[in-house]
Amino acid sequence: MQKNIDSRAKIARLAFVSSDLDRHSEWRGQVETVQKLADDPDARFVGILGDAVAGKGDKPDYGRPQHMGESIFLGLDADGHPWFAYAANESETLALRPLLLSGSLPQTELSRLAQARSLVHWHQSHAFCARCGTPSVMQDAGYRRHCVPCGGDHFPRTDPVVIMSVEHGDAVLLGRQASWPAGMYSALAGFMEPGETIEQAVAREVFEEAGVRVRDVEYVASQPWPFPASLMIGMRATALSRDLTVDGNELEDARWFVKSDVQKMLQRSHPDGFYAANPFAIAHVLISAVVDEPSQE
Amino acid sequence: MQKNIDSRAKIARLAFVSSDLDRHSEWRGQVETVQKLADDPDARFVGILGDAVAGKGDKPDYGRPQHMGESIFLGLDADGHPWFAYAANESETLALRPLLLSGSLPQTELSRLAQARSLVHWHQSHAFCARCGTPSVMQDAGYRRHCVPCGGDHFPRTDPVVIMSVEHGDAVLLGRQASWPAGMYSALAGFMEPGETIEQAVAREVFEEAGVRVRDVEYVASQPWPFPASLMIGMRATALSRDLTVDGNELEDARWFVKSDVQKMLQRSHPDGFYAANPFAIAHVLISAVVDEPSQE
Repeated sequence: MQKNIDSRAKIARLAFVSSDLDRHSEWRGQVETVQKLADDPDARFVGILGDAVAGKGDKPDYGRPQHMGESIFLGLDADGHPWFAYAANESETLALRPLLLSGSLPQTELSRLAQARSLVHWHQSHAFCARCGTPSVMQDAGYRRHCVPCGGDHFPRTDPVVIMSVEHGDAVLLGRQASWPAGMYSALAGFMEPGETIEQAVAREVFEEAGVRVRDVEYVASQPWPFPASLMIGMRATALSRDLTVDGNELEDARWFVKSDVQKMLQRSHPDGFYAANPFAIAHVLISAVVDEPSQE
Repeated sequence: MQKNIDSRAKIARLAFVSSDLDRHSEWRGQVETVQKLADDPDARFVGILGDAVAGKGDKPDYGRPQHMGESIFLGLDADGHPWFAYAANESETLALRPLLLSGSLPQTELSRLAQARSLVHWHQSHAFCARCGTPSVMQDAGYRRHCVPCGGDHFPRTDPVVIMSVEHGDAVLLGRQASWPAGMYSALAGFMEPGETIEQAVAREVFEEAGVRVRDVEYVASQPWPFPASLMIGMRATALSRDLTVDGNELEDARWFVKSDVQKMLQRSHPDGFYAANPFAIAHVLISAVVDEPSQE
């Protein structure tokens, strides 16, 4: 019971999982309703430019922009204020990743930024119909693009990614990419492919990246990850053995760490400077899930 | 323990979850390796035309076609035979859904057809770069499309869908779409949206479609669904009350069925002709999960 509460508390600390917006999808097709919401003096506007949000200093600016173009309806907040997203061209912006790290924004606000960032990126990278090559038009308040000549309808992408902690007795399998800061290790992960289950994707990715076979694949938690539009599906699994064959392309290194060391890596107190995922990332919850409990072997 | 075994047996009966192909993604970028695999006299070729597979009578034809065009590498089967998919234009085909229902194909073979169907459909519906509108070219043995002028890379879509059984005491919430055969009810479901967790998507969809609030959302199982490229994420949840407000757009009807009646619907023995999902569909596993055990209330 205590363990369950710990786990819930850890999940609540994740970034992007705490949206309070009611999306009101039933309004999206009603052009006049959406226009009325946008005209509401209490409406908030999230300007997205690449990985950044319009704003100054350390505060996003949710005011109505002078030149907005098409806007995307995100939903109503708990006070009934409508939230919109638009493609910004402001010179003053705040990068999303440092905002995340700084912890200066409430969790609900970070979640709105995630929704805004994924949707704006989708429109910017899908301005043309993939079926016939013609420019398409935004519809349904930003949740559809329509191609007039060929009649094609296109919907926002959400790319499922499996991410998993793998244990074997008193050890945990962690890997690192060459681009990460020195000393950082985290859970293995990879995009799901057509025609596989979540459980098969976990087994495939762990074998491809580390040459390790797994069993007892279980779901732990999920997290939207707006760089640009992933759904992180957080899993845990048990390895059949500790033999490793590291794929040098996807990972620079993968190794087994003893659980007591991983505890220190999570708390950033490992004597050799190794550390594991940040508490806002689902990898932290997944790694915690296998080190916080006695081994099942 | 017995319950766990029952549940695993039911998951194993699902369509498309039993692929035995080793996808060997590390070979996809190696043009010569892939060509050698395609030249192997033991190579199998799955021709896909819309929702159908090339074949005659009740048997798919996996022979090398005369005019194949580009082919997609699916993987090696347990005997080491390479499998490929291609866009067919044959006049003789077998529709996939009746093949599913007939139960005439081994589970592993159905899984290969699902992978083939999703990938071929993706190429056919994404021949143009969504970023700039130029025709793109297939690369990585079918797992990427590249746009030469703008340099854009595009990857196959997998659309996550939440599907969930909702219980309240001794009752289960089921719905039906107007297009379904008379008497058929199943689990509610809907596409995930950018910026939400799996658990939030379940709560949003159940509220949108039936006006019901839920708690204790839990993962049960997953299933790829190749019509055209969904990932069904199977969940269960508990309703806060039995008050219903059915959205007439998405669902024709939704109602609470007593669990003993739902058992009969799953077994197709309900006296009024109501029935629930087919055993090959994940809805069957999800509904079974809440009716096969004593109420948690």
